[in-house]
Amino acid sequence: MNKVITIGREFGSGGREIGLRLAEKLNIPFYDKEIISLTAQDGGFSPDFVASYEESYTPYFNPSITLGSVFAVYEQPISDKIFLAQTHVIKSLAASGPCVIVGRCADYILRDTAIKVFVYANMEDRIKRKLAMDIGVPEQNMRKHILSVDKKRLKYYQYYTDATWGALSNYHLCVNTSGVGIQGAVLVVLCYLSNIV
Amino acid sequence: MNKVITIGREFGSGGREIGLRLAEKLNIPFYDKEIISLTAQDGGFSPDFVASYEESYTPYFNPSITLGSVFAVYEQPISDKIFLAQTHVIKSLAASGPCVIVGRCADYILRDTAIKVFVYANMEDRIKRKLAMDIGVPEQNMRKHILSVDKKRLKYYQYYTDATWGALSNYHLCVNTSGVGIQGAVLVVLCYLSNIV
Repeated sequence: MNKVITIGREFGSGGREIGLRLAEKLNIPFYDKEIISLTAQDGGFSPDFVASYEESYTPYFNPSITLGSVFAVYEQPISDKIFLAQTHVIKSLAASGPCVIVGRCADYILRDTAIKVFVYANMEDRIKRKLAMDIGVPEQNMRKHILSVDKKRLKYYQYYTDATWGALSNYHLCVNTSGVGIQGAVLVVLCYLSNIV
Repeated sequence: MNKVITIGREFGSGGREIGLRLAEKLNIPFYDKEIISLTAQDGGFSPDFVASYEESYTPYFNPSITLGSVFAVYEQPISDKIFLAQTHVIKSLAASGPCVIVGRCADYILRDTAIKVFVYANMEDRIKRKLAMDIGVPEQNMRKHILSVDKKRLKYYQYYTDATWGALSNYHLCVNTSGVGIQGAVLVVLCYLSNIV
């Protein structure tokens, strides 16, 4: 396997774990949260600052207009600067050789070269999974929390790619882990990879 | 494998062929166009008549209203009668044992029991595939023809299921055949099936 594999994922579907196991099986690097520190280095930000902007964006806002000025002075939002640094990091990682990259619009950034996988699951299973991970969200709020994370990812993806997060045409393979679990999904992705034409 | 497998498919993606090969591999019945004659028998229609309504619908229309009557006499469109007969046929086939069923909202009709697969492909590959099949559409019109068939399927699906054709949540597995070809996609689906939890 000499390709970069990108993993998009619904929150709680097991996408990160699938990516991790795939990277282990294929003996290639795995990048998820690691991209935060690399982006911080690349853009000259602090890692905490980059983390606070994880998969979020600031719509264009020009204070000079609201202050009544007739001169529109463009100011690039910090979230855009972080996205550009992250894009640069993702392209550099991909240029270094095969790896697995989770989230962060990597499937869009590497759309012409990567094998793009999307992982999803039924809501009931996502709730169970996140409750078992004990992420500090009470059971009665978990569904709402999951939907809010998904919505954030969808908006972020749409803002930076002008495409729809989770739409089939962005991906080579979309696997519902509710049917086969994490290990089954890893085997399905490996099967796809070993049959690339 | 003791499950029914439904195959939704973009036009030209190879979904029918994948379904056929899966059924052969699993040694279970395959139903695609066969459902037309079964629906005709079930509903007392002629097969040609059912075929002419394949994956199409007639929006509700009440002639009494347009004629100025204050009495709204409901008349069920013929496409609805065919859909109901088809639904009955699909449920009966599923109740008889494992099989592969292509299209016709079978994934929705059997949503709680079937393993639901969606097959899709890049437009370029779909055009090539349909041109090679020589379906009587000139090369310059093929893209438009493919899009029109997809649109018809999408509208039909939405009309009868109130869900979105090709939306991830309807399916267990979505395979882009542009990456792995028909035979590769068959292996990927078999891998998913053999790992069902």
